[in-house]
Order: sequence, then structure tokens, then C-alpha cells
Amino acid sequence: MNTFGSNFKVTTFGESHGAAIGVVIDGCPPGFSISETDIQIFLDKRRPGQSDLVTPRQEADAVQILSGVFEGKTLGTPICLLIHNTSMKSSDYNELKEIFRPGHADRGYLQKYGIRDHRGGGRSSGRETAARVAAGAVARLYLQKKGIIISGSLIEVHGDKNPDAIEKAIRDARDTGESVGGIVQLQVSGCPAGLGDPVFGKLDARIAYAMMGIGGVKAVEIGSGVQASKMIGSEHNDQMTPEGYCSNHAGGILGGISTGQEILVRLSVKPTPSVRTLQRTIGTDGYEKTLSVHGRHDPCIAVRIVPVAEAMMALVLMDVLLEQRKIDPDKKPGF
Amino acid sequence: MNTFGSNFKVTTFGESHGAAIGVVIDGCPPGFSISETDIQIFLDKRRPGQSDLVTPRQEADAVQILSGVFEGKTLGTPICLLIHNTSMKSSDYNELKEIFRPGHADRGYLQKYGIRDHRGGGRSSGRETAARVAAGAVARLYLQKKGIIISGSLIEVHGDKNPDAIEKAIRDARDTGESVGGIVQLQVSGCPAGLGDPVFGKLDARIAYAMMGIGGVKAVEIGSGVQASKMIGSEHNDQMTPEGYCSNHAGGILGGISTGQEILVRLSVKPTPSVRTLQRTIGTDGYEKTLSVHGRHDPCIAVRIVPVAEAMMALVLMDVLLEQRKIDPDKKPGF
Amino acid sequence: MNTFGSNFKVTTFGESHGAAIGVVIDGCPPGFSISETDIQIFLDKRRPGQSDLVTPRQEADAVQILSGVFEGKTLGTPICLLIHNTSMKSSDYNELKEIFRPGHADRGYLQKYGIRDHRGGGRSSGRETAARVAAGAVARLYLQKKGIIISGSLIEVHGDKNPDAIEKAIRDARDTGESVGGIVQLQVSGCPAGLGDPVFGKLDARIAYAMMGIGGVKAVEIGSGVQASKMIGSEHNDQMTPEGYCSNHAGGILGGISTGQEILVRLSVKPTPSVRTLQRTIGTDGYEKTLSVHGRHDPCIAVRIVPVAEAMMALVLMDVLLEQRKIDPDKKPGF
Amino acid sequence: MNTFGSNFKVTTFGESHGAAIGVVIDGCPPGFSISETDIQIFLDKRRPGQSDLVTPRQEADAVQILSGVFEGKTLGTPICLLIHNTSMKSSDYNELKEIFRPGHADRGYLQKYGIRDHRGGGRSSGRETAARVAAGAVARLYLQKKGIIISGSLIEVHGDKNPDAIEKAIRDARDTGESVGGIVQLQVSGCPAGLGDPVFGKLDARIAYAMMGIGGVKAVEIGSGVQASKMIGSEHNDQMTPEGYCSNHAGGILGGISTGQEILVRLSVKPTPSVRTLQRTIGTDGYEKTLSVHGRHDPCIAVRIVPVAEAMMALVLMDVLLEQRKIDPDKKPGF
Repeated sequence: MNTFGSNFKVTTFGESHGAAIGVVIDGCPPGFSISETDIQIFLDKRRPGQSDLVTPRQEADAVQILSGVFEGKTLGTPICLLIHNTSMKSSDYNELKEIFRPGHADRGYLQKYGIRDHRGGGRSSGRETAARVAAGAVARLYLQKKGIIISGSLIEVHGDKNPDAIEKAIRDARDTGESVGGIVQLQVSGCPAGLGDPVFGKLDARIAYAMMGIGGVKAVEIGSGVQASKMIGSEHNDQMTPEGYCSNHAGGILGGISTGQEILVRLSVKPTPSVRTLQRTIGTDGYEKTLSVHGRHDPCIAVRIVPVAEAMMALVLMDVLLEQRKIDPDKKPGF
Repeated sequence: MNTFGSNFKVTTFGESHGAAIGVVIDGCPPGFSISETDIQIFLDKRRPGQSDLVTPRQEADAVQILSGVFEGKTLGTPICLLIHNTSMKSSDYNELKEIFRPGHADRGYLQKYGIRDHRGGGRSSGRETAARVAAGAVARLYLQKKGIIISGSLIEVHGDKNPDAIEKAIRDARDTGESVGGIVQLQVSGCPAGLGDPVFGKLDARIAYAMMGIGGVKAVEIGSGVQASKMIGSEHNDQMTPEGYCSNHAGGILGGISTGQEILVRLSVKPTPSVRTLQRTIGTDGYEKTLSVHGRHDPCIAVRIVPVAEAMMALVLMDVLLEQRKIDPDKKPGF
Repeated sequence: MNTFGSNFKVTTFGESHGAAIGVVIDGCPPGFSISETDIQIFLDKRRPGQSDLVTPRQEADAVQILSGVFEGKTLGTPICLLIHNTSMKSSDYNELKEIFRPGHADRGYLQKYGIRDHRGGGRSSGRETAARVAAGAVARLYLQKKGIIISGSLIEVHGDKNPDAIEKAIRDARDTGESVGGIVQLQVSGCPAGLGDPVFGKLDARIAYAMMGIGGVKAVEIGSGVQASKMIGSEHNDQMTPEGYCSNHAGGILGGISTGQEILVRLSVKPTPSVRTLQRTIGTDGYEKTLSVHGRHDPCIAVRIVPVAEAMMALVLMDVLLEQRKIDPDKKPGF
Repeated sequence: MNTFGSNFKVTTFGESHGAAIGVVIDGCPPGFSISETDIQIFLDKRRPGQSDLVTPRQEADAVQILSGVFEGKTLGTPICLLIHNTSMKSSDYNELKEIFRPGHADRGYLQKYGIRDHRGGGRSSGRETAARVAAGAVARLYLQKKGIIISGSLIEVHGDKNPDAIEKAIRDARDTGESVGGIVQLQVSGCPAGLGDPVFGKLDARIAYAMMGIGGVKAVEIGSGVQASKMIGSEHNDQMTPEGYCSNHAGGILGGISTGQEILVRLSVKPTPSVRTLQRTIGTDGYEKTLSVHGRHDPCIAVRIVPVAEAMMALVLMDVLLEQRKIDPDKKPGF
């Protein structure tokens, strides 16, 4: 349940306030160049404290390659990437030991496991996503060599699409101890046709799984998304000519298989649940409490989700790409 | 790639115009009563030809239990459910042998496999969902005994929520050889808290995977869904009191774990791609063609997706329910 | 738990005295010719009643292809093969309803599931292996095209290697209501080097898993097998020259990866547990009983295991063969 | 392919001469006490340099718990155990860069991946087993609490069962630069009845897979093993009385399900392939070479395999134990 993918298998581990977080990648093709620097570039994009739109919390997030790479090249053996936890102020979280924060998984974890690491969310912390980004970096480097480019962006915040309004909404939320939701869009260019497998290995289903598994995501749309429900057939169909498709309502995926068009995905992200505004909740004792969450929180987690969503997309594509080769061993490479 | 789930494993097989379609369920608890009649009830809801809002195509869809049940009770061994294909007019499809239908997976299949069964979509046909519904019926019967009730409904068509307008939109589409999109809503009551596993086994991620894997679905929303992106933190958080939650923006799932509240999911379904309206496309020879699809098609596949979505929800819940027991072998049953 | 393999996935279903037994194969390469006749040839080898060395029980074992094949060629979609149960004398087994047969899984099943189909072993019957043989036939046809040939033989019975002594031992056992154990040897020629994956996907480990999973097998040896424990290093090592290996103690597998030499495997099979000789046992009520098992049993199940072991070897090899392609998508086919 | 188990999932990583080796355990029950000291005890048993019967190579093998444990108890989240590589004399291996050692996987790895870490076997080194032992330690601590005790021993070397002869054979091999094979026996007491799943999840099949996956093992026997092939039915069957079984030819497993009797397994281990005796081989250039392997090697790897086999048995049992709970969620714990 901590493993993603079946061909490019990514297993993350680590609690936000434990010794380290990390990831083991099993199934990476051999003979491919990667370095700690290559991976660090992607991690730095995810790291907090880089602008006034995100939490000022500092995390060094320095990645170490522990295995699977020899003389700068992948061996085809498991790659373990490790990130030590350094900026841990566990005492910040003492008051949270006996209270459930609204909008967080605190209560679910305790109900489920009977034990939880309350410090910063423990395993359910956003910090776990650093491990996904590290693994995603390896996948992205590989995909880039194949001409597959993934790019994500924040296209809407609090219902507003204007870039200035977006910045203002985030700053206002930060200043008032509140938070705002937003929409992240992903685009993939250069993706070959034929990726994805019917009937339970569909590319869009796997993308939905990967994206909905990012904390805070409440909706996943492919191509026309919610808008599809408001259209008629001849309008929605992407007609074809020998030169290509005439539109892309499908978002690059038909019947669960990539068409070769640009893949388009949108994620709706809820506002950060940690807010200063006083809220009603209960304690681990079951009694009523009120809570105002202080500390260094992101006013808009959608900002931070961009690199995570890019990483997850890379993991999905890498997984389906490696899978294609199984289908027909006689088929020429370069599908 | 034709298997869904890891604990209640469901493997479907069959092409729409082959000898039969069916499903093997591996992992069903033993000692539980099921009969062909129990399953048939759910299949009949999916079956076409039952109202003037769906295709008049007749499919008997009579299910047979071939294994795994002895003297009316499940044995804990694999259950094979078989549905013979009877109403097959393969000749209807002859004209489609050398042309790719817009909005369909025809081209993707041929590119991927180099071979396809062009008759009625073959494996990618909606008919494959009968096998999912049959397996879902077994899961639903089990879940019902635990008090978990799943119900789905069509809540919007072509952007309209009014029931009369919905019926009219579908009839108009049928009469003009067009089709319309719609929104399906699922509600699950009686679901216990604690289902779902971080970080890659989240309940919402699995639901998204299951739902986006239904042909025609272009968006999956959990709880507040797309609306979450337009809200602020204190508004979106579901505050708690000792009596329970004050709202349900989470849609019954927080941090990927069920909260015990009602689970709420919405699917946006595209309009049926098979329309009479003349469309531009290409043939298998790569040359430009035009196509007007005749035959008995659903004017609104969202109608038909309701029972399929219910079945997939049942498969997801059954799968996570069985999984809970692994987490702590000492834990009392009835989580 | 009823699925074998991860690339060429084989799921069997069916009880010996239910309506049918069968198998679903998921992951078969597309565009490959198979017919019911091709598969029937292999099933007929497993079928009882063909010589006086095996049970005179008659089973027609006629296989039907229900899906995954269109105009004689595989589609790349799941292949369902079905064998209806015809020769079912359930009444033969009435006396076994409340007693546990020594050497059989009867007690284990009831303890585990709290319910069992007592007729002829139900799911644990040797009859389930017909489904494995059917799936193995598909794999063998594919492997043969690649020049990989699997052949099995009975090389020892009751400690004796002489063919005449083997026949006599089996006839004597049959005539006295007893049974004898034996050794089955498998040889695979034409297997390319490089199949198998460290560290938990080793070819020899998978073979051991497949073979020990055949009912009645108590030991699996690869190459030198038990004899290896009695040797010294320089004697056991297979030295190499540019012309090839000087010996084959490895049995064609080193470090879990095929070397390109012949693969050699031996299975030790216990005597059939169903014997006429009176034995002490207990009833389902826990009280002491004695039992003399009548009915049509094989005097030496090792005879019947030959085609099953060949089939399982084919499933293992097919699975690893398809897997190779994942390792390096750029690698030329024909490893 | 570097993951073992499906419920207690163990993924190992690391090359013998890389920065570290380690393991991630996913699926460990929460709320269970473990410490680095607890695990270190088992690692120390595997560590070389402890007697004159094993390699004098020194490896500190100090284990670190990086995640999944909070205040001394498991969290139910992934446990990462790390062992830094300290005693690495890579230069020892320079001469092996361009030559294939007989009896080793060198050639297979290079053929398969096109790249290899030649230093001490890289990923295929026996050193990887330290990670298995670390994971096995966690499983064994859990199993011990349930009364399940695993113990292994070296019962035969070079065909001799006498303890003095065993010691002498190993010392002689060491002194002459040769090596000897041996037999390891495993006994499991306290194992409950009902573990293991038909038809492809049989306990004996999983044990065979786990054991044959240990480098150097050439045969796996359960209970009567090879001897079963020489017996008759009434002799081999373990008759039952209300007081229990009258014998244990089954080795504690019938029809793939544990009977509650002691589990008995034997492994035949080949002699260490690295010997001083001059041997014929080829270089990576394909030309003929001769090789005498120097360095600090074990004269009898069977000695070193004892703790590894115990660990693998623990992993198998832990995996099936957790699985039982899935079968019937209503069933009382403590099967």
C-alpha cells in the first residue's frame, strides 16, 4: 500500500518527523545516466520556503543515491533515494497530540491503526511527497530522453484565473491565517499513441488513481472533464483527418489508450485544512474542543501540488511505457 | 490488466460478439449465500431494451454460476460467472471493419495490438460491463449484509438537472440520431470509518481509478469536487462535535481513509460517440472518410453507467473491506 | 491465490464436481494462432483412462475457447478456456462427507474455510490441473515457435529406474489397492540465456514454486539437486570455454538467470494417498474412524503429473519471457 | 522483482560495494515493539568473521531503523532498515572486471542488463541477504509472540552427517582453497493449522520459492522429500487419531495448507563457487581464460545460509499469517 506502479515500482517510506524519508525504485531500465544533482533540481522545485506564496518552513531535502547506480549509470537494480529529515520541530506539534484537526486524517489514522505519529502528520504529511518527487525525477529524466515532456501549472485559485488575482488571493489567505483552493493543470507532450491497457489498466484510470492519491485533490478531469457532461456527441467527438485530430476533447486518451495527442488533466485542490480561524473539533478523549492551528502552513497547497502532480504523471507514464513491451515481445521497440 | 482489485480479485473476459463474456472472482469469503437469481436482478438493471431512454437492443444476459458455490453457499474458491452472447448481429458491423469511429478506441486498439475484433467494439464494448455488474452483484450482496448500501442516480443531463428536462434531452437526442452527456452521482451509506490505506491505497484514489476506468467517464469528483478549488479553508473543513461532523465536503473520505460519513462521488460522462450525424474520420488505410453511425445505440450512456458505477463502487469497497483484516491480525472483526 | 504468473497471468476456477472447470489467461501476445484442437492434444495426454497404468475413470475433457481468439488468432485480450464436468458420480463420495482422508487436504480445507465441497476433493482435486494443462498448452505453442521445447518423463518409481520395473511396480500397486511414489524429470531445450530476475524473481525459485504447487510433489531439484550438497567446488562448477559450458550441474540456471544450457528439473512425487489399505483417521466429529478408500484412483500420480509439470514449466517460461521486454524497452527483440 | 511477499512486503536494495544495503517492509502490523538491538541480534548471526568455519571478512552490519517505528513501536507504516557498507575493498575485485567466474551469475547479469557492478558480485552478492535477515528479524519477533519458533541447522556436509566430520570437511576445504556443499534443515514449531491457500498460494510452494531463491540452493524438500518417491501410499500417509497425527511425512503441510504439525524443510546447498583451484573460463571478450579465485571466501556457504533460510521462512510465514485474515472478515482472530 506504499508502492505505486507495477513495472516501474516505487515504494516510499518515512514519517515527516522520523529520521528520514525515501523511496526505492524497482524496475528502472539499466544503463541510463542519473546523478544526485539531476534529482535535486526537481526536489528543489517542491521544497518549501522559496517564495512568499508558500510556507516559510525550511527543509534542506538533500537527496542521496544509496543503490542502483554505478559509475553514474543505472544498473537495473533497485534505486534507493534517501532524504534525511533535518528541520524537525516536533515540539510545535505537542498541542496536537490529543486533538483531531478538522480536514486532516488524524482521526482516521488513530481509528485505523490505534497508534499514530502526531508530529506534523507523520506518514500522512505532505512531506512524504518529496519521496514521490525524487522517484518522479528519475522517471522524468528517462521520459525526456524519449521526447515526453510533462508540465504542470496553477491555472485557477479560489475561482479566479487571473494571475494577479491568484497571487493576491494566496497572499490574503496567508495574511489572515486562512487558505484557498485551486486548480492544477497538467500537459504532456510527445506521448506516443498506444499507452494504456483495457479494461482495468486504462491510462486515464491510472492517472485518476495517481492524482486522487495526492492529499487535498478532490476532483480529476481528463480532457473535456466535467464539461463533457454538458455536450452532445457530434460536438464532443474528436473528428479525424489524415493530418490528425480536429480537436482534443478526449485529452489525449480514448478507450483508456493514448492517442498521441497532448494529454490534458486538471486537478481540483481543496484549501489547506490548517487555518488559524477557530474551529470546532473533538479531542482523542471524544470531548468537544476548539482549535486554531498555528505554525508555518501553506496558504494554498495547490501551489505545492504542481511538482508532485508532475512527478506522479511521470510515474504513471513510465509504468505504462515499460508495460507495452510485454504485450508483444516480437514488436519493434519505439512503438 | 483485466483484473480489478487485490483482495476481492475480479477478472473479466469476453468480446461483445464472441461466444460469451464472464468474470472470475477470487477472494470471495466462504459460507455466504448467493444464487443466479440474486445476481440476475442486478444484471437486469444494466440490460438494454428496458425503456425508451436506452438502446432497444435486446440482450438476454442470463448469468450462470460455473464454480465456487456449493449447495447455495460460496466455498471461498473462485466464482466463475458466465453470460453467453446471444443477440449478435455481427453483420451490422461489417462496414466498420475498415474505418475508425470518432470518439471510440478503434484506432488505439489496432495501433496497439495490430489486430482487433471490430464487431461492436470487441473487448472495448460496453458489453464487457455486464461482467463487472455480475461481479459487483456478489460484492453488493455481501456489503448489504454489513449494512453498506450503494445507490447511484443520473442527476444531470446536457447541463440540466430537472428530471423532465433530462428525459426530454435524451428523447430529443435519440430522435435526431445524436447523443447527450450527463452526470452520475453515487452515495454510499453505512460505510464504516477506517477503510482505505495511505499512501497509495487511498480509498478516494481507488474510487477514482474504478470510475475513470468506465468507458465515457471524463471526470471524477469526491465530495466537494471541483467546487473545493473555489473555497477557503475554514469553509471547506468539516468541523467535528461529539455528535459527529457538521458538514460533508470531504465526501466521507479524509486522507484517503473513510470517516464513517456518507461517501459521495460524481462522474461526468461524455455523450455516446456513436451518432448518425456525419463526421470526418479516416480508414484503416489512412485515407479520409466520412461516417454516419447507424444501429441501435444509447442516446445517453450516462443512463447505462449508473448500475456499472454502483458495481464498481461495490468492488472497491469489498476490496478495501477485506484488506482491513490484514493490517492487524489481532484486531476484533467488525472494525 | 488462484492466479499464477504476473505477465502471462493464469487464473483457474472450478471444483471437480461442479458445472465446469476452466482458466482465464490474461497477457497472451496478440496475433498468434491457436485452436481448440491444438489445446485438446495436450489435454488428452493428461486425461485419465488411457492406459492400464492410470485410473480407468473417464473424463471427456473437451475444451472450449470462449474468448480472446478471433478468426483463429489471439486478440491480446483474456482467453477463457472452459471444460465442462461430465463424468461426475457424486454419490461415490457420500461416505467421505464426514471423514478426513489421510494424506489429503480434507481437514485443512474444512478448518480453513468452515465449508468444503467433499465430492472428489472439490477444488483441491487433481481435476483442477486440467485447467493448468489447457493454459500450459497455449504457452507451449507460443514457446515452440521460439524454439523452446519442454519434455517431461517418469524416470523412477518406488526407487527403481528400470522401465520394466516401473511398469510392474505400478501394476502391483493397482492390483493390491496400494500406490507408489516416483520421480518426474523435466528438460527444456532452446531456452535463451538471460531469463529470470534477481533477487526475488529468480528462474529457479519460480520453477520451484510452480512445481511444489502441484499436489503430491515433496521435493524439487534443479540440476545437481540434492547431489550438490555432496560435492566440492571445483567439481560442481560448470567451467566455460569459448565453445560453451563443460558440464551442467547448474541445470541451466545460475544466480537465478538462465545460462542458455538445457534446464533440468526433477520432482519427487509421493504415492497417491487414496489406498484400499485400512487406515486410522478421524471424522469431522473428531472421533476415531478407520477408512479404506475405494473408487477409481491412480496407483501412481507421478504418471499423471508429467503433463501437468510440463504445463507449469511452460507457464513459468512464458511469464519470464514476457517480462524480459520490460527491463529495457530499447533492447532489440530476440534477446 | 526485488520484493518478496504480498502482505508483509519486503523490498531489498543495495549492491555489495555501494553505499548501503537495506530493506523496506510494508505491511507490518502496528503497535508492536521492535528496536535496532532486537534486529541486530539476528544480523550478528549472519555476519561473517565469527568462527574459523566462515570467511574472516569483517562486516560491521550495524542496522539503523529509518522509519515506521515511533517511540519503540511499529506504526503500521513502512519500516526502512539500513546497513551501511563499510568493509569495502573494491580493488580486490579489479581482476574480476573482465572475466566471468565459473558457478557465478557474472555472465548472466552482463548478458541481461548490458552493465554490471563487478565488485563482489554487486547485487547478486551474498551480502544482499543481510537485508533479508534484517526483515526476517522483524517477522521472527512477531511470530515468536504468537508462539511460532523457527530454527535451522546444518545437518550434513559433503555427504557426511557426523558433527566432527562436518567441521573437518569445512576446515579441509578452507585450507586447500576448495569448498564443500551441505544440507540445511529448518524446523518450525507452533505453526497453527490452516496457513496457505490453494491452488497457487500453497504454503509448500511459497516455501520452495523462498528457499530456492537463496543463492546456492539446488534442492528443496518438504517432509519426506525425495524419499517420498520411494514409498507406498499406506506407508507415506500420516494417519490420524483424536490425539493427533501418527507420523509427519507431510512435513506439516497437506494440500498446501499447514496441518498444525511441525514444518520440516531441507535445502541442498552447492559448494561455494569461488575456489583457488585453477578453472577454465572465458573473459568478457569471449576468449578463453583460466582463473584461480583468491580473497576471503566461505569454504561452505551452507553454514552462512542457515540464518538466511530461517529469515526467509519467517517472511513466508508472516505473509501467510497476515493473509488468513482476509479470507473471512468475520472469523475470530487466532485461527
